[in-house]
Amino acid sequence: MKEYIVKTSSRTEMIDIGHLVEDAVRYSGVENGVCTVFVPHTTAAVTINENADPSVRRDLMMELNKIVPYTDNYAHREGNSAAHIKSTLVGCSLSVIVQSGKLQMGTWQSVFLCEFDGPRSRKVWVYIGAGG
Amino acid sequence: MKEYIVKTSSRTEMIDIGHLVEDAVRYSGVENGVCTVFVPHTTAAVTINENADPSVRRDLMMELNKIVPYTDNYAHREGNSAAHIKSTLVGCSLSVIVQSGKLQMGTWQSVFLCEFDGPRSRKVWVYIGAGG
Amino acid sequence: MKEYIVKTSSRTEMIDIGHLVEDAVRYSGVENGVCTVFVPHTTAAVTINENADPSVRRDLMMELNKIVPYTDNYAHREGNSAAHIKSTLVGCSLSVIVQSGKLQMGTWQSVFLCEFDGPRSRKVWVYIGAGG
Repeated sequence: MKEYIVKTSSRTEMIDIGHLVEDAVRYSGVENGVCTVFVPHTTAAVTINENADPSVRRDLMMELNKIVPYTDNYAHREGNSAAHIKSTLVGCSLSVIVQSGKLQMGTWQSVFLCEFDGPRSRKVWVYIGAGG
Repeated sequence: MKEYIVKTSSRTEMIDIGHLVEDAVRYSGVENGVCTVFVPHTTAAVTINENADPSVRRDLMMELNKIVPYTDNYAHREGNSAAHIKSTLVGCSLSVIVQSGKLQMGTWQSVFLCEFDGPRSRKVWVYIGAGG
Repeated sequence: MKEYIVKTSSRTEMIDIGHLVEDAVRYSGVENGVCTVFVPHTTAAVTINENADPSVRRDLMMELNKIVPYTDNYAHREGNSAAHIKSTLVGCSLSVIVQSGKLQMGTWQSVFLCEFDGPRSRKVWVYIGAGG
């Protein structure tokens, strides 16, 4: 397992971490298997989406903030319930297939860390299991 | 890894691909492990839900279209931001346990490709890793 | 694969099953690999979130019930379409990295079964694949 530290700079934001995941695949030396990306946080998430037009990310964050408003008579005293809810909706783990030592993704896909309660320093864990 | 091509016929739709995933499991010859289903697209997704009553799928698509409206002052010029957002909410990868050469799912479960920006031709990638 | 039975007591609820997942990891004897948690139901889900303050869970269920209302002119006759939709939004499978025989999670994270159509008796399947 390899750990990467990612610093976020806004309250909600998507950061392209595709190069980190590819680095972990190379480092592992695994030819065929599955890459697990995991964020050990409860107010962040990991997703795959388009990395070509940055407006896709902005639209995604804008709409998620509408679907789950920052304030809504939440009981949790820390004031970040919206971030916890978005974390569960998007998810904190991902599986990507590895073949011939390369991460198998679509032309427009990349892996993104989703920050929902920033700015903070976040950990991303990547593990590549050889699949036999 | 096995690739399947699925043709969709509507703007948003769920297509049962359970038989394709089962085909990949048989083809792999793996007895015990994990099956990863991955859609290499940013305006589609993959999920597991009920395959008995087709109205479940229609309700699911109807409600997702309410939660994430087609138009909402999105910045992305291609006009398919809603599809990108739904792709992240549902997710593009899935893990299913394989035991004794069989996909382990509940009685009412099947795997579905979710089309959010169709009609199109979509790819589905399935990999079965032997889990030792 | 190990199967656990979890009894739920409300219509919607999150139940901490972290100890069951840890039990499965110990039982497997796997040192390094990936743990797959899978719920074989179409009106339940599995997620990772905070286990410290129970109000996080209550806020999460409250907000999900707002995003996906119980009644909304759904076509599915069984009356539990909202539960099916929430199951797809949260997801029925999860992957967690295992290192040195231990589940790798963040300080505040635990695994939760999400009940969306209870009370019922639910199955949770856990499989740990050795990752080479």
